[in-house]
Amino acid sequence: MADGTKIAVLDTALIANLPASAKTLFDAKASKNLSFEAIGKELGRSEVAVAALFYGQAQASAEDIKKLASILGAPENVLSAQLAGFPDRGKAAPMPPTEPLIYRLYEIVQNYGYAYKAVLNEKFGDGIMSAISFTTNVEKEVDDEGTWAVITLRGKWLPFKRF
Amino acid sequence: MADGTKIAVLDTALIANLPASAKTLFDAKASKNLSFEAIGKELGRSEVAVAALFYGQAQASAEDIKKLASILGAPENVLSAQLAGFPDRGKAAPMPPTEPLIYRLYEIVQNYGYAYKAVLNEKFGDGIMSAISFTTNVEKEVDDEGTWAVITLRGKWLPFKRF
Amino acid sequence: MADGTKIAVLDTALIANLPASAKTLFDAKASKNLSFEAIGKELGRSEVAVAALFYGQAQASAEDIKKLASILGAPENVLSAQLAGFPDRGKAAPMPPTEPLIYRLYEIVQNYGYAYKAVLNEKFGDGIMSAISFTTNVEKEVDDEGTWAVITLRGKWLPFKRF
Amino acid sequence: MADGTKIAVLDTALIANLPASAKTLFDAKASKNLSFEAIGKELGRSEVAVAALFYGQAQASAEDIKKLASILGAPENVLSAQLAGFPDRGKAAPMPPTEPLIYRLYEIVQNYGYAYKAVLNEKFGDGIMSAISFTTNVEKEVDDEGTWAVITLRGKWLPFKRF
Amino acid sequence: MADGTKIAVLDTALIANLPASAKTLFDAKASKNLSFEAIGKELGRSEVAVAALFYGQAQASAEDIKKLASILGAPENVLSAQLAGFPDRGKAAPMPPTEPLIYRLYEIVQNYGYAYKAVLNEKFGDGIMSAISFTTNVEKEVDDEGTWAVITLRGKWLPFKRF
Amino acid sequence: MADGTKIAVLDTALIANLPASAKTLFDAKASKNLSFEAIGKELGRSEVAVAALFYGQAQASAEDIKKLASILGAPENVLSAQLAGFPDRGKAAPMPPTEPLIYRLYEIVQNYGYAYKAVLNEKFGDGIMSAISFTTNVEKEVDDEGTWAVITLRGKWLPFKRF
Amino acid sequence: MADGTKIAVLDTALIANLPASAKTLFDAKASKNLSFEAIGKELGRSEVAVAALFYGQAQASAEDIKKLASILGAPENVLSAQLAGFPDRGKAAPMPPTEPLIYRLYEIVQNYGYAYKAVLNEKFGDGIMSAISFTTNVEKEVDDEGTWAVITLRGKWLPFKRF
Amino acid sequence: MADGTKIAVLDTALIANLPASAKTLFDAKASKNLSFEAIGKELGRSEVAVAALFYGQAQASAEDIKKLASILGAPENVLSAQLAGFPDRGKAAPMPPTEPLIYRLYEIVQNYGYAYKAVLNEKFGDGIMSAISFTTNVEKEVDDEGTWAVITLRGKWLPFKRF
Amino acid sequence: MADGTKIAVLDTALIANLPASAKTLFDAKASKNLSFEAIGKELGRSEVAVAALFYGQAQASAEDIKKLASILGAPENVLSAQLAGFPDRGKAAPMPPTEPLIYRLYEIVQNYGYAYKAVLNEKFGDGIMSAISFTTNVEKEVDDEGTWAVITLRGKWLPFKRF
Amino acid sequence: MADGTKIAVLDTALIANLPASAKTLFDAKASKNLSFEAIGKELGRSEVAVAALFYGQAQASAEDIKKLASILGAPENVLSAQLAGFPDRGKAAPMPPTEPLIYRLYEIVQNYGYAYKAVLNEKFGDGIMSAISFTTNVEKEVDDEGTWAVITLRGKWLPFKRF
Repeated sequence: MADGTKIAVLDTALIANLPASAKTLFDAKASKNLSFEAIGKELGRSEVAVAALFYGQAQASAEDIKKLASILGAPENVLSAQLAGFPDRGKAAPMPPTEPLIYRLYEIVQNYGYAYKAVLNEKFGDGIMSAISFTTNVEKEVDDEGTWAVITLRGKWLPFKRF
Repeated sequence: MADGTKIAVLDTALIANLPASAKTLFDAKASKNLSFEAIGKELGRSEVAVAALFYGQAQASAEDIKKLASILGAPENVLSAQLAGFPDRGKAAPMPPTEPLIYRLYEIVQNYGYAYKAVLNEKFGDGIMSAISFTTNVEKEVDDEGTWAVITLRGKWLPFKRF
Repeated sequence: MADGTKIAVLDTALIANLPASAKTLFDAKASKNLSFEAIGKELGRSEVAVAALFYGQAQASAEDIKKLASILGAPENVLSAQLAGFPDRGKAAPMPPTEPLIYRLYEIVQNYGYAYKAVLNEKFGDGIMSAISFTTNVEKEVDDEGTWAVITLRGKWLPFKRF
Repeated sequence: MADGTKIAVLDTALIANLPASAKTLFDAKASKNLSFEAIGKELGRSEVAVAALFYGQAQASAEDIKKLASILGAPENVLSAQLAGFPDRGKAAPMPPTEPLIYRLYEIVQNYGYAYKAVLNEKFGDGIMSAISFTTNVEKEVDDEGTWAVITLRGKWLPFKRF
Repeated sequence: MADGTKIAVLDTALIANLPASAKTLFDAKASKNLSFEAIGKELGRSEVAVAALFYGQAQASAEDIKKLASILGAPENVLSAQLAGFPDRGKAAPMPPTEPLIYRLYEIVQNYGYAYKAVLNEKFGDGIMSAISFTTNVEKEVDDEGTWAVITLRGKWLPFKRF
Repeated sequence: MADGTKIAVLDTALIANLPASAKTLFDAKASKNLSFEAIGKELGRSEVAVAALFYGQAQASAEDIKKLASILGAPENVLSAQLAGFPDRGKAAPMPPTEPLIYRLYEIVQNYGYAYKAVLNEKFGDGIMSAISFTTNVEKEVDDEGTWAVITLRGKWLPFKRF
Repeated sequence: MADGTKIAVLDTALIANLPASAKTLFDAKASKNLSFEAIGKELGRSEVAVAALFYGQAQASAEDIKKLASILGAPENVLSAQLAGFPDRGKAAPMPPTEPLIYRLYEIVQNYGYAYKAVLNEKFGDGIMSAISFTTNVEKEVDDEGTWAVITLRGKWLPFKRF
Repeated sequence: MADGTKIAVLDTALIANLPASAKTLFDAKASKNLSFEAIGKELGRSEVAVAALFYGQAQASAEDIKKLASILGAPENVLSAQLAGFPDRGKAAPMPPTEPLIYRLYEIVQNYGYAYKAVLNEKFGDGIMSAISFTTNVEKEVDDEGTWAVITLRGKWLPFKRF
Repeated sequence: MADGTKIAVLDTALIANLPASAKTLFDAKASKNLSFEAIGKELGRSEVAVAALFYGQAQASAEDIKKLASILGAPENVLSAQLAGFPDRGKAAPMPPTEPLIYRLYEIVQNYGYAYKAVLNEKFGDGIMSAISFTTNVEKEVDDEGTWAVITLRGKWLPFKRF
Repeated sequence: MADGTKIAVLDTALIANLPASAKTLFDAKASKNLSFEAIGKELGRSEVAVAALFYGQAQASAEDIKKLASILGAPENVLSAQLAGFPDRGKAAPMPPTEPLIYRLYEIVQNYGYAYKAVLNEKFGDGIMSAISFTTNVEKEVDDEGTWAVITLRGKWLPFKRF
């Protein structure tokens, strides 16, 4: 926890859009007062992946569930039942996002979308950067100008198949 | 040009949404057969910034305009007139994007938006990553699993001001 | 309370869109019959910031929570738990707003948006006025023509970063 | 012109949404290289009002038209014909705005809408701040923290009429 | 009650969009079997204003609340608490309206909107007819052609302020 | 022309949404400098109906066309051809309206829609006020409080047919 | 029941959009295992009208309520209370409809809308076919090509009133 | 032509949404002053089908084209080229329709959609009424109550296939 | 179950959009730990059809219900009551889909829609491929390039009926 | 060309949404009277891929362009210039599609989306079927029940990457 004071909790108004596991996981995280960075380190996964898992946007393996139960002090059988299925993604954030932080990411896509496409097409040919065979992480950098957030998106390049 | 065969050109159906400079710049780029990487190197700017400039999403300085005229073999007075104002951003890509490559970036925001927010809040406190005091670049990586596109987003962290 | 008769309370139909803290805070405010101006003075924050905090649009510091509990006569541990996270902003008002008072502000953006952009660009260059590093306040003025509401928006100027 | 280098011009992709006067006025402004501040001073109107007039969002009086023709070196009969009617407002900016500068103003309404309503209701009673009997201006402030844009909105308070 | 048989009641599917007072008022009205005309006469307000008040679209004064409690046989303290705040208007009817009666009014705006604007501008200059400093009423007329509903809209004319 | 100075003309950005007759009629009206009130008096129709006819929202009879040609000094054969068909209504104003004057009418429907329905149902039974078998007019009233616009909507009452 | 096996029941996911009467009526219909045709015959109304009444889209007379109570074996006082008001129509089906059967009707309007308008205008002049003074029924026809559903729409012709 | 005075022509604002054949056909129809009924009789097709063909919503056979050229006095080779392909349906009417006549049909679907579904399901089982294997016609009826438009929709019943 | 580890369960956030049967069926499936393939084999229906039935998108025959009760160990009378009606289809997935897997299918329609239309029209004439008289299945193929999902859509060809 | 009479041509109302190559290719195809099947055979690509290429949804290799010029009798330099870039996909069909044939495909996604997801997840685990590394084809089958269109979708299975 970089700013040393607070962890993320689940906004009550979001609960209805998320799977039942979200509330269980966030409640346990709150009562243990753990950051995603701390959970990620123990779990052996990226902190973004852990947060995504909490919001129902990433899958937990059987071993993840066992470890999470232990890290969070949550009943394993409840976690197991609530995380049994395959994630039903994409329901948390309204689009366009109303949350200012998330909107800034949306704005980057809106403003630079065609620039990314042109540069990626020139570098890789006709295809896409996968959002599935994909990893991402967040770093903090500090320099003379101030503090910077750095988000890295890394996706496999998939060429359109000729047929 | 990584794939050695093609450069990005301007789709004719996009022209009506873009400033007049877009057609001038893309036409000149096509007749010189230059990639954004090549233009960026000569101009001393990132290739994504150059592509954004072509799509009317970034500002050209007076010196940029002079150099672009020379690099592209385009009449400087035309470029000067067409690039005189301040960019009117955000009009190229419909949202949600219909283009598959751009949609994948949108999907990343849709799926991971709250995860980014939670991790950024824990790392930096209450605020946003700026999309204005912001730079971005695109890299290619190749490993055993295949070819990867890596997009880096770097924005100044802006805390909400207390009042 | 300028008109000497009423304070703002929470419309029951809004509750589902807001964090749990909203109901707690508004209920306590109602039973103490306090205006935002009165709370703001005791808390040492702007009355608009206090109202924003009540609607889940601004963060409360640990000290704010302690003071609020005392000012409002609300249990500190409940407030603490409900205000523990980072605000998930932007969910209260539908857009376009249906509420006439809020719609008028929206209409100002719709009608004068490009005029503000042109004037700000000429005064400051290519950039934006931050809505994050931002403060705002509301004043009342009375003159021969009648009564006037004056809203001041003050945001840091952020130039687009060249890259 | 605060940054001493550039004036606002009309983005060609906006022309189809605006009345014919917009192009005439902006073209003349560009060829005279005048800022809105300069035009406003000569015309005796606020620079925001002048920009709004250029974008078809404010009315020009017969005297305004005469003066504008002289200030801009534009044919008075053309201006007269193109500015003859009553403004058909609200068509320039798509809502939600895609332009980042204008979006920030929209976001202020989205995030602080209910806070403004609560504070205004407590200060003035049940009513609205008029966007018609309304003036606005833009100022620049510089302090230790940096440069600030300050937008003031001043509208007559209209109470809901009892019936 | 013109047709002598029925009074308006609250559709159960609307309740979630309305303030808590709506259900209290409509339930009491139903058990007293009172029309809005009858309530309006006793209250000394227009029947449309009374219906608007029931739907949360108009404010009740302290005296209105006292009278309503007596007319409707409803507990004054409940009404007082539920009607304490300022109306949060505009949430009852989806737009475009799906209800045929309300849609016809919407269609009048859609079809005659510019005609009203042209005629009002010619009669009054550049401005609007206020919907805030506004009264309205409904009359029934019968002639040889049949039965007619007559809705009168009366709003203060507000000229755009020059600045 | 109540304010003695200006008549309504056709905004050039509206032309593409309207039938060809709109431009012909408005151009002729402008060159004759006639108000809708003046045209209406000579034509023997309401000024709102005339404005609606100009915007393609009302039908012109053969006699109307002959008279309009004479009043406006426009070629009868052109008017005849352009007004030959049946109006294709509803395309001028975007909904929700962006024009502030038209928006106020929309807001009246949004805020008072259910109140009108309740009162009309109680007065007339289950049915609608027709927007087809319908007339409307605009009046100006001046009293101590200021100037008022009064719009009257008069439509035949149509009961739902039992089957 | 033409196919001899099943009757229509109320989908549980629709209940929240409908008045309370819908559940009461459909539950009773289900426990009596009655088709709309059977109910319609006993009630003396068209089966489509009966189904519309069940979905809250048509009014029940006092006599209808008495008969329905008897036909369905439902408590008359509950039906009376739940059917006391005027229908609040148009809330059952989302538009565009997602249900394939209802979508086909929507598609007919989308594809043939202007053809109907042209033919109706030529046959009847400038006006509309009323959807209020309107009846409809459904028939089954069988011929060599297969089985056909035939829906008849019969509405009073309403000419636009000249004013 | 029932009302003896006018035929339907093509609104100029619709042309951009329709295939090139629409203008050719409507222009020829106008110069021959033919109703769809008259054309239908000569062509041997329903007048609604003919109108649909004119609006690009129905296919013309090679023989239809030959006959139309003769009936309308239009060059067969132009018609042949413009009607060569397969109709690209559904682009004429915006949905929801803004035209009052077409809106009434849309409202019938909105209000009675589920009633039709319930009755059709009970009569035919699980399936849909086809809008493809479909015919329709328009009739005029006059009785004591007035003039009625009767639209018949006849579509093949398609049961959902079990798999 | 191809990957040997997990079965699909019902996301709790979807329940409100689905008929009551969905929860009953999925709960029983989960407690029996059965895949759709296993259920389909026992039931004698395609696994896609079974999944569609669970999501309320396909009809169960009386015999299906009996078998499902036995396969799933669920009470037959509950299943019978919950599956008594006709499916009210189309309410599970928001459109455009937010779920990445479902979005890919949507994208195929968006990108290849006109190509399918052109090829189908050339192969079959003017008509559609039915989605009602329709079957579909899913297969897995493995080759040198990797693992492939193959979805087959098979629908009856319906020619537009000439009239 | 299965029905022996017609080939697909480009609807004139679609041209503005498509790249310039679309008109060139379709015009040449029309003047040579070639079906996509015929072109596909000569080009050595699937007929769906060829149609997609014509609509700007698939890339042409340098060799494709040479062959197309020869097959279609079109100037190679024009084709070369117009097909030089990377496809800007997804702009032809509005979503939801208004064209009945394309809508049926959309409806399949709407109705069966979650069923496909459940079955694919059980067969392949957590991932998606790629729409990029993807091929598709269309076949015609005739059996006792009639004529069937069969569309096969074949996409590489992409598992979500664990991180």
